[in-house]
Amino acid sequence: MTDAEGTGEGAADSTGARSEEFVQSLARGLAVIRAFDAEHPELSLSDVARRAGLTRAAARRFLRTLVTLGYVSGDGRLFRLTPRVLELGFSYLSALTLPEVVQPHLEALSHEVGESVSAAVLDGTDIVYVARVPTRRIMSVRITIGTRFPAYATSMGRVLLAGMTDAARDAVVEASTLQPLTGRTLVDSAALIAELDRVRAQGWALVDGELEPGLRSVAAPVRGRDGAVAAAINVSTSATRDSVEHVFEAYLPGLRRTAAALDGELRLV
Amino acid sequence: MTDAEGTGEGAADSTGARSEEFVQSLARGLAVIRAFDAEHPELSLSDVARRAGLTRAAARRFLRTLVTLGYVSGDGRLFRLTPRVLELGFSYLSALTLPEVVQPHLEALSHEVGESVSAAVLDGTDIVYVARVPTRRIMSVRITIGTRFPAYATSMGRVLLAGMTDAARDAVVEASTLQPLTGRTLVDSAALIAELDRVRAQGWALVDGELEPGLRSVAAPVRGRDGAVAAAINVSTSATRDSVEHVFEAYLPGLRRTAAALDGELRLV
Repeated sequence: MTDAEGTGEGAADSTGARSEEFVQSLARGLAVIRAFDAEHPELSLSDVARRAGLTRAAARRFLRTLVTLGYVSGDGRLFRLTPRVLELGFSYLSALTLPEVVQPHLEALSHEVGESVSAAVLDGTDIVYVARVPTRRIMSVRITIGTRFPAYATSMGRVLLAGMTDAARDAVVEASTLQPLTGRTLVDSAALIAELDRVRAQGWALVDGELEPGLRSVAAPVRGRDGAVAAAINVSTSATRDSVEHVFEAYLPGLRRTAAALDGELRLV
Repeated sequence: MTDAEGTGEGAADSTGARSEEFVQSLARGLAVIRAFDAEHPELSLSDVARRAGLTRAAARRFLRTLVTLGYVSGDGRLFRLTPRVLELGFSYLSALTLPEVVQPHLEALSHEVGESVSAAVLDGTDIVYVARVPTRRIMSVRITIGTRFPAYATSMGRVLLAGMTDAARDAVVEASTLQPLTGRTLVDSAALIAELDRVRAQGWALVDGELEPGLRSVAAPVRGRDGAVAAAINVSTSATRDSVEHVFEAYLPGLRRTAAALDGELRLV
């Protein structure tokens, strides 16, 4: 098997030009790792090929390489990730001091309010969960560390956007595809920017059923050592259980106190 | 730049033979991701080349590819991982149902005993942490999810080894490099196997200062749906604070109750 047949190394890229810089084999190998997820923890060679968009021959080569490197194990028919894949993602969290510094604060807040507490950072137009203390499950999708949601429709996304300069914030809003995820989602960019101004002034954001019906959450910003908003934390709850007034009275004081305690503690690079 | 110069794709492998199956570019790209860690969250091109064992030209190509794919960001001089790398490792944890099922039990136990609680699985001759609720820091090295220790010198490793068949257990002991990590480490393989027999019979393991002086921990096995030992959980504490008797009386009952509650709950593939 030649490289071009097997892995696309040095092959034409999607624009048809031969790329001298882009390492196609690396992109395809990472796609093989990402072919596995919580719903698909075990995959056959054909499954991997289909989910990663590769030929069977290429998928076999990448799987064998990952087995040799210790990231994948398999009995010949079914393959699965090994705990070694954890080494690829956790250095990011450790560098943020999240496991040691942030997690205990979030656990204390969750214990105090009896609701799920999370932390997220912005990546492009998405928020990405970097810590989470779940209580009961109130969302239809499973949230874990690494889960992404569009920033514009989430309480943590709004405090992160509100903490940016106007120009940077407007660029993210511009790049976002504003969609009515529920009947309540703010999809008008002028109205969204007005809400972000309000969030910036008040120092917290409440989102009521805009990401998912019945999901209500309140978020506060966490600042880095330079004073810029670096992350957000939130308390999320069910709209059928708590009134908006209860969210303010029961959760906002503890949330803001926790956010203030974390200011300057998050080592962001 | 040719592939052989730039990324080693299809180049001679470490045995000197040209490998038709091993995708060198994938191995090298993963080494670039792993060049970043908690102590080195920001790296220059030269740092990445040195830490990943690549030429500057190759390191540049891999970094540019990872930037294009969204796993790395950089200002031209310094590079860092983005939260997208979390997608590479967390599907492994989610598939185990660890975030939703196991973590709350570990948090309850840590709250009850006031000490750090962890869960680990076996990977070759190492244990790998898959969940952790830290309290105070009692070890000289930082432990996060993904941290590895030699199984033979840890309480979780011993319950994992004790849960294997004799032949499988002996093979892991044989493959392990038994070293005196402290003055107390069990390094005689016959003595270690005798201790593993004892651990199997009693259903838990206590390790007292064999991994690090002053670190004492007690572990219990967690069984999968097939009844085989699939993971281990432990409580770790400082030898200067607690007597061995206190470890038994204060931690072992809650530890064993938590392990029993998790039996059959861990979805292992």
